[in-house]
Amino acid sequence: MDDGTTGPDLDRLARELETLGTPGRLVRDPAELAPYMRDASRAVPDGAPLALCLATTTAEVSAALAWAHASRVPVSVRGAGTGVSGGALSYDGGLILSLERMDRILEIDAENRLAVVEPGVVTAELDRACRAHGLFFPPDPASARSCTVGGNVATNAGGLRCVAHGVTSDAVAALEVVLADGRVLRTGARTRKNVVGYDLTRLFVGSEGTLGVVTEVTVRLHPVPPGTPRTFRASFDRLEDAGNAVTAIVNGPARPEVLELMDALSVEIIESFRPSGLVVPGGAMLVGQTVGEHAEAHARAIAESCAAHGAVDTEVSDSDALLEARRLSNPALNARGLKLSCDVGVPVAALARMLRGVEEISRRRGVRVSTVAHAGDGNLHSTVELPEGADGSARAEAVLDEVTRLALSLDGTISGEHGIGAVKLHELPWQLDAVSRDVQRAIRSALDPRGILSPGRAV
Amino acid sequence: MDDGTTGPDLDRLARELETLGTPGRLVRDPAELAPYMRDASRAVPDGAPLALCLATTTAEVSAALAWAHASRVPVSVRGAGTGVSGGALSYDGGLILSLERMDRILEIDAENRLAVVEPGVVTAELDRACRAHGLFFPPDPASARSCTVGGNVATNAGGLRCVAHGVTSDAVAALEVVLADGRVLRTGARTRKNVVGYDLTRLFVGSEGTLGVVTEVTVRLHPVPPGTPRTFRASFDRLEDAGNAVTAIVNGPARPEVLELMDALSVEIIESFRPSGLVVPGGAMLVGQTVGEHAEAHARAIAESCAAHGAVDTEVSDSDALLEARRLSNPALNARGLKLSCDVGVPVAALARMLRGVEEISRRRGVRVSTVAHAGDGNLHSTVELPEGADGSARAEAVLDEVTRLALSLDGTISGEHGIGAVKLHELPWQLDAVSRDVQRAIRSALDPRGILSPGRAV
Repeated sequence: MDDGTTGPDLDRLARELETLGTPGRLVRDPAELAPYMRDASRAVPDGAPLALCLATTTAEVSAALAWAHASRVPVSVRGAGTGVSGGALSYDGGLILSLERMDRILEIDAENRLAVVEPGVVTAELDRACRAHGLFFPPDPASARSCTVGGNVATNAGGLRCVAHGVTSDAVAALEVVLADGRVLRTGARTRKNVVGYDLTRLFVGSEGTLGVVTEVTVRLHPVPPGTPRTFRASFDRLEDAGNAVTAIVNGPARPEVLELMDALSVEIIESFRPSGLVVPGGAMLVGQTVGEHAEAHARAIAESCAAHGAVDTEVSDSDALLEARRLSNPALNARGLKLSCDVGVPVAALARMLRGVEEISRRRGVRVSTVAHAGDGNLHSTVELPEGADGSARAEAVLDEVTRLALSLDGTISGEHGIGAVKLHELPWQLDAVSRDVQRAIRSALDPRGILSPGRAV
Repeated sequence: MDDGTTGPDLDRLARELETLGTPGRLVRDPAELAPYMRDASRAVPDGAPLALCLATTTAEVSAALAWAHASRVPVSVRGAGTGVSGGALSYDGGLILSLERMDRILEIDAENRLAVVEPGVVTAELDRACRAHGLFFPPDPASARSCTVGGNVATNAGGLRCVAHGVTSDAVAALEVVLADGRVLRTGARTRKNVVGYDLTRLFVGSEGTLGVVTEVTVRLHPVPPGTPRTFRASFDRLEDAGNAVTAIVNGPARPEVLELMDALSVEIIESFRPSGLVVPGGAMLVGQTVGEHAEAHARAIAESCAAHGAVDTEVSDSDALLEARRLSNPALNARGLKLSCDVGVPVAALARMLRGVEEISRRRGVRVSTVAHAGDGNLHSTVELPEGADGSARAEAVLDEVTRLALSLDGTISGEHGIGAVKLHELPWQLDAVSRDVQRAIRSALDPRGILSPGRAV
């Protein structure tokens, strides 16, 4: 059963898991481990992990963490591995804790608009199950069809519908969390209001696996709006005009459920990946969706607002094709091998200045940059094409650094929805000063004094 | 300047504040201190505080806390002193830190729907200033005309409009906080999305002065809905029917901005305090408000839903009188000397069961209980009349304890919006288990290792 090279400790964990009598498995075969070592970022893990725990119950997670805590073994935690910040990379000599098999929807409480789920439930599956009750789960990251609710919680994931419904933390009412030493903590409540103790739920959401391992999530659901959604499109010759239109729309009376921006190069990349007849605009294209009884009127009002802000062409439709095009952005970029991108955010009124700035940086540095944005939230993903030559990678990184610093200069953020993980850690001091980092570290040490949870990442 | 009895330490603080050259004052005259020793709870402070710091700048707050930290002096922090949980009571030998003079609105950024304010700004004043920009500040606790934004943040205050717009923490984007040792921390961002480091903003909101002192708040504003609000009323013979109507309304298509419940005794108390022609219902009265273009249609739909759930009489109006009656609940109870009340919450679908249970407890124990509720949030304030006799107080407390335990048995909470403070600390273990309390204490110690901030309160 054991070849003896991984040391006696692992045998103890294996025995403890066996004692529990549940189906969780401890995997030591390197070939079986390999797919669990990386995430969707370009980052490469160091060395070889000791083992993979495919947990199926809270008790198993608790046993695994108690063992890792006692043995001072670093732990990487993962759902579907769709993260793009390297937060789930395995550690040399570390334990990989996978929650993909904790994938049950435990309860849908339609009257209180709550669901209780295990962390390995795929986001789109939860959404689908809720729709049978006339409800939906608002977070919809681009990877919704493969990512898990636990991963959404770990990164406080966003998506297309945030402009209307907020981010993952707005959709989480309560958590069950296994702490670094194996103790089980319950946070939050099923009530809409609760001011008892600190808001630990919000502390764990977005903590990227550094404070504990989430084993159960109570999520808040929203009622499916009545009627048929409408989509809208507006094409602009000038990128900046599109940015100004976004500010007007989010401050106007007709609120969209989705409001996305694709610049000209993005549309070109998506259209050449899977042609759907989209005409590449001179500057940028806004696409979005309205819902509810007045979806049609609201979509038309938004299209008119775009025209008033310089759109050269607008369209309102009941087809989902426009949003599908936007959703193809990631696959299209991936197909070109374009993975060097950022996740900056700015206050929405600064969007036009930000877009103009990105354009200027691209031109000045002679590097092609495509930008898609959750425009209504001021959250931009700019992707650079790797320039040719030995210094191509460094030049591309320099462009993204400059884009990131521009966002910060506009009161922005270095990450709107992807998190810091391993990949962005060097940028953290750009946004958070020494006092803030001290406080983060103090909280982390208080909860994980031995530093076994995702060490060297996130904060 | 000093009579010498308070020891040399205070002189040092006075000199340090003087050195800053700003208008902040250190008050040592017991008569001047007295009004700053209590809050709006029945709780009585122990002993005599050393001094009161009337701070006007962040630097003064920082100097005061650095001094208290070095001197190990307990600090009570206060805005307007409208809290009802004893969170702002002074300490024997302690420093009172008042933020009432930090009362400036620093910025209203209409395009990004943000405002930046000092903590001493009165909540209703902020709301009024925002309305000049077509925006409003959603939290509206009953004390909005006197309480401060800093106090709202400290307790994560609620109010009448939470059912539509959420609680204070939903309206806070960023904070400036002075830590226990005097260091200044900035949390959050002006963006809608931000996943950089832990969500310290949410950690501080509702922390009741135990983790740091908030010196600046960046709040999120909402656009004022178009059109004229409508109010509605529905009277029920059976309390339980009113509860079931609430569940139906919050899950229905016509969403109210306000949805409040007053039981028969509450209406009687309010009407005898200031008669407005309200007819005391057999069981309970629901009152509320709808806003936006379709306010009239939504109010009518809600009234119809009430009728379908057993309302014997309904009314839709464009007058604010119905809500004014509800807002008189606290003054009316205070005028009767009725201050023994709770702040429990239940999932909204459990509201009918909760109301029936309170009725049953009242009858069984022979103690009169009146209940008002932010019904749409499942947040109830039940107030007991002190029974006559030597054991009256104990009997009244026993009723509230039973009501609180009932809420917990329905997956509820011991506090929806008032916080724990000093008054409810004994109830904390009813809701939070040992692991949760350990984690809370670990975080508290990490941020305030000497325990000078509101010691013995909140967690």
